Amino acid sequence: MKIALDVMGTDYGPSELVLGAVMAVQEYGCDVVLVGDESTIQDLLKKYGVENNPHLSIKHASQVIDMHEHPAIAVKTKKDASIVVATELLRNKECDALVSSGSTGAAVASALFHLGRIKGVGRPAIATPIPSLTGTTVLLDSGAKVDAKPDNMVQSAIMGSIYSELMIGVKNPRVGLLNIGEEETKGNELALATYPLLQREKLINFIGNVEGRDINKGTVDVVVCDGFVGNVVLKFAEGLAKAILTMVKAAIMNGGFFAKLGGLLITPALRKLRKTLDPEAYGGALLLGVRAPFFICHGSSKARAIKSAIGVAVHGVESDIVAHITDAIANQTRIDEVVGHMK
Amino acid sequence: MKIALDVMGTDYGPSELVLGAVMAVQEYGCDVVLVGDESTIQDLLKKYGVENNPHLSIKHASQVIDMHEHPAIAVKTKKDASIVVATELLRNKECDALVSSGSTGAAVASALFHLGRIKGVGRPAIATPIPSLTGTTVLLDSGAKVDAKPDNMVQSAIMGSIYSELMIGVKNPRVGLLNIGEEETKGNELALATYPLLQREKLINFIGNVEGRDINKGTVDVVVCDGFVGNVVLKFAEGLAKAILTMVKAAIMNGGFFAKLGGLLITPALRKLRKTLDPEAYGGALLLGVRAPFFICHGSSKARAIKSAIGVAVHGVESDIVAHITDAIANQTRIDEVVGHMK
Repeated sequence: MKIALDVMGTDYGPSELVLGAVMAVQEYGCDVVLVGDESTIQDLLKKYGVENNPHLSIKHASQVIDMHEHPAIAVKTKKDASIVVATELLRNKECDALVSSGSTGAAVASALFHLGRIKGVGRPAIATPIPSLTGTTVLLDSGAKVDAKPDNMVQSAIMGSIYSELMIGVKNPRVGLLNIGEEETKGNELALATYPLLQREKLINFIGNVEGRDINKGTVDVVVCDGFVGNVVLKFAEGLAKAILTMVKAAIMNGGFFAKLGGLLITPALRKLRKTLDPEAYGGALLLGVRAPFFICHGSSKARAIKSAIGVAVHGVESDIVAHITDAIANQTRIDEVVGHMK
Repeated sequence: MKIALDVMGTDYGPSELVLGAVMAVQEYGCDVVLVGDESTIQDLLKKYGVENNPHLSIKHASQVIDMHEHPAIAVKTKKDASIVVATELLRNKECDALVSSGSTGAAVASALFHLGRIKGVGRPAIATPIPSLTGTTVLLDSGAKVDAKPDNMVQSAIMGSIYSELMIGVKNPRVGLLNIGEEETKGNELALATYPLLQREKLINFIGNVEGRDINKGTVDVVVCDGFVGNVVLKFAEGLAKAILTMVKAAIMNGGFFAKLGGLLITPALRKLRKTLDPEAYGGALLLGVRAPFFICHGSSKARAIKSAIGVAVHGVESDIVAHITDAIANQTRIDEVVGHMK
């Protein structure tokens, strides 16, 4: 199995990404194609002493798309950008999956223009796993489509349900619509229009509306929302988790001698927790609805996160999630069936 | 100064609310009118030994609106509901402010129908203070208007800015638009249309787009979003804070002997932090844009939270926030001025 890794355009530069790839080929036995500036990558492979490792290869790309460029324009005009070259490897089946940690917008645009959607999918959605008190909840869409339509939300629910089943191992995952109240009559226009469609979709186990407080509770497996809400919530979670751990530390430091001693004693346990809550530990959100497995990592991913992302990509290829989504979309409840059920 | 307290329709029943009022009159020296079932309230006043306290009075209301009723229909048909009776006291200037902890929807509907908006305000917004690493951030709208228009967002920004200044004491508060990226070109239709209006509004110190991760960072004082996003974010914060503190506890308990010992030593510090993060400690979100100070507490508020809410209401009356908002709305940048500035 071969995974393409776009090593350019990230916060920490190519060295963290190449190191992550080195760790991944050791751990998962897969091949990785490093996409980006050839001489930079060669130097890094030498630095890590793996220039002759047959599992690591290089695909040169002379351009980079940075975080501040307009995604759609950049992926159309920079034909030799690393994300575009990596996407073309995927389209031409020269690799089985792609892992990117550059600009999310550019990654989504590249997937849309150079890889293409699964037949019948209106818009792809980004599925992000987040820790709950009992396991892992999938939140989607976390940023691919900001002004979603009810149809997009239903497809997110179907794709998220398959993700939860195949990637997380949940049987018959509980799908909830993120809303401001549990009652069917609550919500904005989008939520109100989406609810009856989810209720009638036979491919999912829809449990109704869920609220913000349910996301981490472990009472729902797949949480559906539009890309604006999902992105705000995810970034807020990141900030809040950091803020609370900082507050825990400050509370201990200001709590007197015994609290400080106690703080020292719990340091290893807290460090472990910080890792659990760290977005870096997750290894990649999956862009669902495109024709091949396409993973998007946090822009500030370090080697360990990249290694995990490649591991998740291997799992995505093995579980054949794209084929499952293709089948499901072909079989989703059609609008005429829905209308037939309406009074 | 007299505060009306609707004691009905909450999760814990009237006893917690009456106790909160007893604590508040002692602490703040204000008067409280307890609105609800007279005999129930009388029994509680006797129970707490304050039946002759001249600062506490009763206004009988024979009906209650519960959490699951349709807000607008309920406040129109149940003319003797406690929230409606309390709102009428406020409208008739028989009290200076109102504190409610029943259904938020019913409270907003009652304020709209029975108290009315400040002249020029399109829709009221709920301003909720949340703790940041350096102080307090105000998030609004946190649930009054789910499908907001750009005009509503601008008024939220103006009203939130006044709130931050008068209620929290921030000078020239930094106002941010909650979005999925910092760049002006990022966002959904609402955010894109709102950005230029905020930029041209002379009454506020607009610092541009902020992301979810900025809310708790202390780098912005007023965060503007629509009522759907705000409500989801606030409820998510509540759930996540609880989940993280539970995870901290679990990490300590599973961390071996020294971690457990350390956990014992930090317990007082953590208990204090839990109180800081507890929505109960805040004492009430303020419904901005209506003709008198109208506070809405969390439905699960206990006595201490109700006491704080009454304290916040006293502060709201003293600072004359409604008059400041009325002036500001009369002076906000008019659309024709905005058009004049556009190229």
